[in-house]
Amino acid sequence: MSFLVNETRLQADIETLATFVNPELPGYTRRPFTPEYTRSRRWLQEQMEAAGLNTKYDAAANLIGVRDGKNSKLQPIMIGSHTDSVVGGGRFDGIIGVLGAIEIARQLEEQGIELEHPLHIVDFTAEEASEFGISTIGSRGMVGALHESYLERKNDDGLTLADGLTRQGGNPDQLNEMALTKGDIALYLELHIEQGPVLAEKGYELGAVTGIVGIERYRITVTGQPNHAGTTPMNMRQDALTAASEIILAIESIANESYEVPVVGTVGRIFSEPNAANIVPGEVRLEIGLRSIRKSALQSMVQKMNDFVQGVLKKRDVDVTIEKISESEPVAVSPEILNNIYDACMKVGKTKKLPSGAGHDANQLASIAPVGMIFVPSKDGKSHCPEEWTDYELVAKGVAALGNALLSFDRQLLK
Amino acid sequence: MSFLVNETRLQADIETLATFVNPELPGYTRRPFTPEYTRSRRWLQEQMEAAGLNTKYDAAANLIGVRDGKNSKLQPIMIGSHTDSVVGGGRFDGIIGVLGAIEIARQLEEQGIELEHPLHIVDFTAEEASEFGISTIGSRGMVGALHESYLERKNDDGLTLADGLTRQGGNPDQLNEMALTKGDIALYLELHIEQGPVLAEKGYELGAVTGIVGIERYRITVTGQPNHAGTTPMNMRQDALTAASEIILAIESIANESYEVPVVGTVGRIFSEPNAANIVPGEVRLEIGLRSIRKSALQSMVQKMNDFVQGVLKKRDVDVTIEKISESEPVAVSPEILNNIYDACMKVGKTKKLPSGAGHDANQLASIAPVGMIFVPSKDGKSHCPEEWTDYELVAKGVAALGNALLSFDRQLLK
Repeated sequence: MSFLVNETRLQADIETLATFVNPELPGYTRRPFTPEYTRSRRWLQEQMEAAGLNTKYDAAANLIGVRDGKNSKLQPIMIGSHTDSVVGGGRFDGIIGVLGAIEIARQLEEQGIELEHPLHIVDFTAEEASEFGISTIGSRGMVGALHESYLERKNDDGLTLADGLTRQGGNPDQLNEMALTKGDIALYLELHIEQGPVLAEKGYELGAVTGIVGIERYRITVTGQPNHAGTTPMNMRQDALTAASEIILAIESIANESYEVPVVGTVGRIFSEPNAANIVPGEVRLEIGLRSIRKSALQSMVQKMNDFVQGVLKKRDVDVTIEKISESEPVAVSPEILNNIYDACMKVGKTKKLPSGAGHDANQLASIAPVGMIFVPSKDGKSHCPEEWTDYELVAKGVAALGNALLSFDRQLLK
Repeated sequence: MSFLVNETRLQADIETLATFVNPELPGYTRRPFTPEYTRSRRWLQEQMEAAGLNTKYDAAANLIGVRDGKNSKLQPIMIGSHTDSVVGGGRFDGIIGVLGAIEIARQLEEQGIELEHPLHIVDFTAEEASEFGISTIGSRGMVGALHESYLERKNDDGLTLADGLTRQGGNPDQLNEMALTKGDIALYLELHIEQGPVLAEKGYELGAVTGIVGIERYRITVTGQPNHAGTTPMNMRQDALTAASEIILAIESIANESYEVPVVGTVGRIFSEPNAANIVPGEVRLEIGLRSIRKSALQSMVQKMNDFVQGVLKKRDVDVTIEKISESEPVAVSPEILNNIYDACMKVGKTKKLPSGAGHDANQLASIAPVGMIFVPSKDGKSHCPEEWTDYELVAKGVAALGNALLSFDRQLLK
């Protein structure tokens, strides 16, 4: 038997939240620290209270609804996501994770189900990339990873992040004191849209997330000679762009090889100098992102990339440098949690195990607690745009799977 | 026996002309329609007069020094180049062609050599790319190719090209009337620096120019899908940049094949959208320049480029469009003129036959007369920069070869 979900009510909630937007910006725009965000959270808080949850804001302005468990000595199970959007965003990203969790709380209340563990339902503050130069602000704050230097940063209106958090109900002075640490949370679960094409294209209704990819970013600079494109014969050129093209194709080819887990590799940015019609390109910079849920797969890709670049260096008369510009660790989902989530999903619909290629609040929570995630399909793989869409029936299936997982973990974690 | 040249006097002239520059701009900057250009031409005119030439300005403000021939019924032989520079330019580009021609006039005068043909020595107005959007302004004007729409264009100071020509001694109202047509000139000869690395690198002292390349420019637009770089698996991507990289390498490969004459192919400009770290490139535009002195070679390259692009289209799930954005015709040097010039050069030093990969005043003159060109080496292939350099001994050899060619043509053209 699967967890009950009122799809009509869920749809109405999603449609209501979609009205709290900035009408002057495209799509469904609800940026954090704006009046529309504040209004939407007041409405969210009302929904939580109506679902029998006791609500509060923590130091990082995360809105938390608490339902007591039978055993107050147990650490809480946390379910959450976010309701802020990118500019020009959609109606589902993050939102279904928060509204789905509130629907679960309502069902528990209506059906009189008492959990063993306390249940914390969280609307995390400002998950999307922000003007402050960071994303997942609320979940960072919850786990003590919102460093002071971030708090002093200002957005375009001159508002510091600290002031923004205060305006949103937080208390930045208390961030260190209130930070959760290992053992404070029994488990963190998150329902989210896939934001990619895999489930929809392959006919799956649900995704059991195997892990969240780590990202290694590199800058490759190819330096040749900016010679005259008319007077320099082909065999006397040191063309930075043709050398860079070999590297671009190699990154693609390396990412197409087989590894123990899926990987992707992308050259997202290219800059060519002097970029003039009459001049052989003298310098090309590439920015490369490699992603996988397994560090060893990333290391293997980097090794192959380095080897290839050495080959280009030898074959072509150009210089090539590689710098690592950033690195984020993969988030592991333990096999036990993954299998439990997979079973919870399979009670509801056809489920595929797949990695999350994008980051989430779960990335931050993973530093202090075991995590698990459930995906529902994104139509045409689209996200961060007004066309972002998941059929309400599938959203409801995702919430039912999340409810199944919650009940199952609530029992199993006691062992 | 080779034509005599006074290298010391030639060097002094080049060094003097290098003093007529704008001290506030980098390198040796002498832009047309500026006070320094006017002063330099006054000095040039004095040198011409002192060499026994009768000077005048034509409608396009070209400074012309005339030496009568024995037979006034023969059409003149014309020798020339330009003395304007690019911003941050050097001391040799164009300049040696004009000062070398004046040195030849002096030698004719000093040695009492009378030519059969009248001799016209020309300092063409504004050869380099100008703020008016065109280059070779003076030589265009001389052959009736300076259209009225060009004359109305304004530079950054609000000066129209017509006013600029008037200021420089021209008479734009007379352009059509005074334009030279086929048969008005027996032959046009030009001495110039190579502006490329071939002669210097291969140890040649002189170049006999086989022709001036035609240029066909194309824009290739590759359209894929700007998907999320984390959530889109490799096999579901439509990456415009990897497809474009295949095309870039193909252009290089096509230009490296063998044709009946040398060719070059360059992707000088690349624009990628959205050029963001987290997004698979959705659209890439390339600008391609193909050059050769033979139209058939250009056509063959274009055919191969089109075929390759069709292959990319089929193999990868992207759209590709090709547009021709401009085209200039190759300038042919007839085999007789080329061989005559080659012989004239070989009396002086080791000579290589090679195409000109850049355009010159000779491009314009070729529309009304047979043309020939002689190159001297450019150190490290550098041009349009302060480091532009040719040893004075080599400049003198170039002038001697030009003198040899002049005497030889003067006799041969009578036949």
